[in-house]
Amino acid sequence: MLNDDIYALAKRLFPICRSITGDGVRETLRILQEIVPQMTIHEVPSGTEVFDWTVPKEWNIKDAYIEDLDGNRIISHKDSNLHVVGYSLPIDAVVTRDELLKMVYTQPDQPDVIPYVTSYYKERSGFCMSENQKNTLDKEQYRVCIESEIKDGSLNYGEILIPGKSKEEIFLSTYICHPSLANNELSGPCVAIYLAKWLLEQPRRYSYRIVFVPETIGSITYLSRNLDEMKSNIIAGFNISCVGDDRAYSYIASRYGDTLSDRVAKNVLSSHAPDYITYSYLERGSDERQYNAPGVDLPVCTICRSKYGEYPEYHTSADNLDIISPQGLGGAFDVYCKCIRALEENYNYKINCLCEPQLGKRGLYPSISQKGQYDEVKTMMDFIAYADGTNDMIAISEIIEVPVEELIDIAKKLKDSGLLEVSEHLC
Amino acid sequence: MLNDDIYALAKRLFPICRSITGDGVRETLRILQEIVPQMTIHEVPSGTEVFDWTVPKEWNIKDAYIEDLDGNRIISHKDSNLHVVGYSLPIDAVVTRDELLKMVYTQPDQPDVIPYVTSYYKERSGFCMSENQKNTLDKEQYRVCIESEIKDGSLNYGEILIPGKSKEEIFLSTYICHPSLANNELSGPCVAIYLAKWLLEQPRRYSYRIVFVPETIGSITYLSRNLDEMKSNIIAGFNISCVGDDRAYSYIASRYGDTLSDRVAKNVLSSHAPDYITYSYLERGSDERQYNAPGVDLPVCTICRSKYGEYPEYHTSADNLDIISPQGLGGAFDVYCKCIRALEENYNYKINCLCEPQLGKRGLYPSISQKGQYDEVKTMMDFIAYADGTNDMIAISEIIEVPVEELIDIAKKLKDSGLLEVSEHLC
Amino acid sequence: MLNDDIYALAKRLFPICRSITGDGVRETLRILQEIVPQMTIHEVPSGTEVFDWTVPKEWNIKDAYIEDLDGNRIISHKDSNLHVVGYSLPIDAVVTRDELLKMVYTQPDQPDVIPYVTSYYKERSGFCMSENQKNTLDKEQYRVCIESEIKDGSLNYGEILIPGKSKEEIFLSTYICHPSLANNELSGPCVAIYLAKWLLEQPRRYSYRIVFVPETIGSITYLSRNLDEMKSNIIAGFNISCVGDDRAYSYIASRYGDTLSDRVAKNVLSSHAPDYITYSYLERGSDERQYNAPGVDLPVCTICRSKYGEYPEYHTSADNLDIISPQGLGGAFDVYCKCIRALEENYNYKINCLCEPQLGKRGLYPSISQKGQYDEVKTMMDFIAYADGTNDMIAISEIIEVPVEELIDIAKKLKDSGLLEVSEHLC
Repeated sequence: MLNDDIYALAKRLFPICRSITGDGVRETLRILQEIVPQMTIHEVPSGTEVFDWTVPKEWNIKDAYIEDLDGNRIISHKDSNLHVVGYSLPIDAVVTRDELLKMVYTQPDQPDVIPYVTSYYKERSGFCMSENQKNTLDKEQYRVCIESEIKDGSLNYGEILIPGKSKEEIFLSTYICHPSLANNELSGPCVAIYLAKWLLEQPRRYSYRIVFVPETIGSITYLSRNLDEMKSNIIAGFNISCVGDDRAYSYIASRYGDTLSDRVAKNVLSSHAPDYITYSYLERGSDERQYNAPGVDLPVCTICRSKYGEYPEYHTSADNLDIISPQGLGGAFDVYCKCIRALEENYNYKINCLCEPQLGKRGLYPSISQKGQYDEVKTMMDFIAYADGTNDMIAISEIIEVPVEELIDIAKKLKDSGLLEVSEHLC
Repeated sequence: MLNDDIYALAKRLFPICRSITGDGVRETLRILQEIVPQMTIHEVPSGTEVFDWTVPKEWNIKDAYIEDLDGNRIISHKDSNLHVVGYSLPIDAVVTRDELLKMVYTQPDQPDVIPYVTSYYKERSGFCMSENQKNTLDKEQYRVCIESEIKDGSLNYGEILIPGKSKEEIFLSTYICHPSLANNELSGPCVAIYLAKWLLEQPRRYSYRIVFVPETIGSITYLSRNLDEMKSNIIAGFNISCVGDDRAYSYIASRYGDTLSDRVAKNVLSSHAPDYITYSYLERGSDERQYNAPGVDLPVCTICRSKYGEYPEYHTSADNLDIISPQGLGGAFDVYCKCIRALEENYNYKINCLCEPQLGKRGLYPSISQKGQYDEVKTMMDFIAYADGTNDMIAISEIIEVPVEELIDIAKKLKDSGLLEVSEHLC
Repeated sequence: MLNDDIYALAKRLFPICRSITGDGVRETLRILQEIVPQMTIHEVPSGTEVFDWTVPKEWNIKDAYIEDLDGNRIISHKDSNLHVVGYSLPIDAVVTRDELLKMVYTQPDQPDVIPYVTSYYKERSGFCMSENQKNTLDKEQYRVCIESEIKDGSLNYGEILIPGKSKEEIFLSTYICHPSLANNELSGPCVAIYLAKWLLEQPRRYSYRIVFVPETIGSITYLSRNLDEMKSNIIAGFNISCVGDDRAYSYIASRYGDTLSDRVAKNVLSSHAPDYITYSYLERGSDERQYNAPGVDLPVCTICRSKYGEYPEYHTSADNLDIISPQGLGGAFDVYCKCIRALEENYNYKINCLCEPQLGKRGLYPSISQKGQYDEVKTMMDFIAYADGTNDMIAISEIIEVPVEELIDIAKKLKDSGLLEVSEHLC
């Protein structure tokens, strides 16, 4: 049911023409806000300097098409907002076939699909179509029309801050700048907004910072405004992207692959999706690039389903609602929940008696000793063996090869028996 | 001959009905004391609190049997002391077949053998027999009789302290609580007592602490009385168990597998028994559990022949004198001797001249240089190359892949030539 | 052309009868000095104590032969200077066949070749010949004659000191004590002298110390006179030996395989000669033994073509000008140049903006974003990602798996764009 809700949201948001700025972004954020009203929507004016970058002018588009001189439409922005290169300047002109071809982008190795193309930082007007369609262009002249506008305006992003007992934060980031593309990227905001909704209903040790930003320029903008606080507070974070299909689970390491986020991601995936694919940071490509940049140094990694760049439909019109599914979205949601739960329980545990405790007198051990009877308490004994004050829960899970989920119950029983000291950090 | 002595001792001790307390333990310790009179025997009263545990009442048994109402004995404690569940309460009653079956333990997956079953911490009366024998029980009623006694008494253990030049200690522990079982566990005390006898005849750098305790409660009791001293003094230790058969050599790592004991065990086994099986600490099961417990933290690992739990006869009547052998016991004795000798010579070595020494003028190098002539001094040159003050003998052995045994001679030659500084610890 | 020059030099030096002292060494050094007149030639008197060793007397030889009593020459020093055991005492005597055979060394497993044999530190007279030739000795008596002289004299070595901006040094060592042997060892001095010539023409961050010494006694002598300065200044060094054939590239690790020299050698070989063979320090055999000795501790490893001891012609008359080649010598020269260039550029790089820089506004990024367009800037982005002040150039190269050669250009572009801070050492 939750899975269906996430998918329904993706379906609703799919047709909106998003870019890194503009009305589509604002409309998307408003719809997300319906689900989590606590979200605040922020505006940053065009021209604002953000680290090495400048917030660009705002781009909006009303319509666009190519027609022959008889008025037959070849392509229309109404059919697919991928038909126009993102940030295209307005144009209304009759051009020769050769002139047109210079404005047209296709994906020759996938002749059926419309590629997704943008040109944020160089002014041009461009169209996208399938290679097959391009090959049918046989007229002398065409009329090309883009009713777009580039003007001073603002860049928008959404932010949800959820307080916990500690000011230490877990950070989730996703992006809202892709037009009609499903896995990359409507899946990210759809899963992230439902994670926020779920978190609001949970008891929370940690605080949560969840942001919905346009990719690259948005995360850079957000970092430029919040870096010091983020560096002080964030203990783990995830860039949520490509979480919609059900063909794979993937993990993209942080810069050195050794943060708490990496540890929990690998731990959860190892037990929940042992066939998951590992990508090094060299295969990064989304906002983890900014969060892991030198000097930013936030502990952020990524868990995907099929990773951007690694599935054939990526950045084409084939990345549509057919390749994502309620199960795909829900599976990713579930893995992120497991990661969060593991982080929430990731205390330092220390057994407080010398030698093994006598579990028998506490009803935690079988009273008869015979070959084969020990299995049921083995995990508890192993937990105790490594609850020596030098390992957190994730470390114990790795060492004894038992999922954190199972250890949470065991730790609770031992704590209830008075045998376990729990502290925030390693001693 | 030594091998035969060890086996003869096992044969003599085999029939005694041992448990974690009682007359069988005391008789066993007295026999061991015949071999090493320096052993002291200690008594700890029932009810003594030892860390999280309490020393139990003492259990003794005179006789036990099941007979049909015609007086035909079905099983008798005289045939095998495994027929009675350890710590069974006394009983003398006529019971129905169904009532009897609730008191009977078998090993259904090994229908020919009597399992070894105990119930130290929950009061009950129970019998063990083979599954095949159980299947012949076709009478309506049986008489069951256990002439046992549970009363305040004491727990006993043996201790041998052998002084060396240093107060630093090497620790050996084995257990004396198993009734008629051979590999696990008469082999341990039999090998350990002969190691003690051998050590008394050697020059000793280190002191030795060798204990013969009932498993679990005995090691906990011993630790509760000696922990501070043990933590101060013990530099390496071994839990000696399952050292009687000749089917395998096994090594069970300490909690993190990185102690001096682990290093020497792996070093010696690598050259002496390169096919040895490695078990992680997750596969522990004997008193290494207590010695390695958090807060106890003693550097103790285990070298076995066939490890407990890993051979089919384990904890059944098939673990008898047929599966151990003089060769099996002697092989384990030999490996432990090699470990001890390696530890005794495990100094920090540092060559005291710059550049390679001229071995030729000391008669340590061939005077003619031709292809193939260098082999005989290669080990010496390699030893010198890594005798740089940052490696102990075991480390050099690992790096240059030459057994410690061979290096001891080389170190002696170099020391005699005045080329080598020897110090206790790494600089 | 350079390759041919190196080979021509080897050809010119080949016939000279070198040993660890004597006229052949001096003549060799004089010829090398023709190529690099900056070389200074040093003399150390016989009898000088150098660490654990003493500089030996000087050995020279005019002629030597074996003939039958009819005056037929069996072997003659004029045919091959390998026919006489190095440091042979003078002799002129008629000996029986049996007496002769005791003076003759052959390589029975390679019956066609004359082995290379020396006896520096024990006085004797000896001859070398092929096993086949030895088997033809069927006369009763022979005349043996060696016109040699052993007397107080000196040990000679050449030294080239090339100043750079920094007093930190890169050290190159090779040896000049082998008679008519080509790969091991005329290739080393021939490549090293041309490296010196090349270095004199380059801009230099580092200073260079290049020495041409007799093996073992020469490097020990050199170290005894320069150790403190060398330990202060040398940041990387290479023992240049066996760099003449073209059958393999080989790398011999330093004592612990972890120095800057090892890092750059492995880095360059990985991209330039990925099939290179790795030898541990246990397989050392040349002057790296002295440079890596405990207390000397210089960061010296070796890059060879076919390593000494690992090719069949080694230390025999078959190690002649036929097995080395201009290509073989030039390939080694090239690898050493690459190592030196990598070391020269091995700064600590740190990107000086937060988040990724906007490469687009600097013309370093494609203005259109479409699947597949990112490849050309990937290496630059990866360089930036790890230019975080904790990695030097070699480390970045290892992490992002791109040869240092390619990174040098990228670093230059980024530096020219003002995006990169460059510092000598890691922060």
